[in-house]
Amino acid sequence: MYFDDYVPGTVSTLRTDLVSEASIIEFARQFDPQEFHVDAASAAHGPYGGVIASGWHTCALAGHAMVTGYLAPESSLPAPGADEVRFHAPVRAGDTLTWRVTVLGARPSRSNPSRGIVRTLIEAVNQHGSLALSMTAINLIRRRPATGQ
Amino acid sequence: MYFDDYVPGTVSTLRTDLVSEASIIEFARQFDPQEFHVDAASAAHGPYGGVIASGWHTCALAGHAMVTGYLAPESSLPAPGADEVRFHAPVRAGDTLTWRVTVLGARPSRSNPSRGIVRTLIEAVNQHGSLALSMTAINLIRRRPATGQ
Repeated sequence: MYFDDYVPGTVSTLRTDLVSEASIIEFARQFDPQEFHVDAASAAHGPYGGVIASGWHTCALAGHAMVTGYLAPESSLPAPGADEVRFHAPVRAGDTLTWRVTVLGARPSRSNPSRGIVRTLIEAVNQHGSLALSMTAINLIRRRPATGQ
Repeated sequence: MYFDDYVPGTVSTLRTDLVSEASIIEFARQFDPQEFHVDAASAAHGPYGGVIASGWHTCALAGHAMVTGYLAPESSLPAPGADEVRFHAPVRAGDTLTWRVTVLGARPSRSNPSRGIVRTLIEAVNQHGSLALSMTAINLIRRRPATGQ
């Protein structure tokens, strides 16, 4: 799969992740040690009824879903960034997130014609059908090599 | 520290993080298993001379620097998101990242007057003075409680 295969308008459903309490707390202890992310006992009495995932944890899961189901090792280059990262419904322990990607746009690189920029809307929908995360991922993707016939 | 203490225009330097090869590979094995993030032997011959950190790893480090040096447990609420996440210079093993925050704006919430929205430019500068990451963080922060005299 190469740049030329990312066709604007294409919608795909990627995998579904079960987000465990242990994984929420492990990530947040390392990177986002706020009470509502790491302290299950205290969070049980809070507005969410338990811990919720750090937004950066949910973004990392989004990245993983893209790497395993949307990007290809032969063409994916280090990514330039992301736009409009939005955390909608909180991600609670035991939630399942299903990842959906929509190709928003694809244009050849101006500085290097052997690659292109793909913009992708990635969304996480939980088991209740609520949107948990949305963002526009920006990826740098190699173009298909010439076959050289 | 409450919403009222985030004054637009204020620039602060937060902590400095040393990013180890082990931490780059550990994060990427879990969330971003692309060769240039996880395979030190292969990456040594690649364009970066070694593994580079997953962008989501760098974002998680940004979040950690904010939680430990910029946000306060008495006022920080789950964040709505981030804008314009940009990965500039790659983050290599052994790099040190110094975090700098600039308060871009602060406005009271329209739906809940007890809190406000703070927009912050967060930047990571490496040991060579190069910008590695920039993004605009969006945080929901409680206003200072009335003293009730």
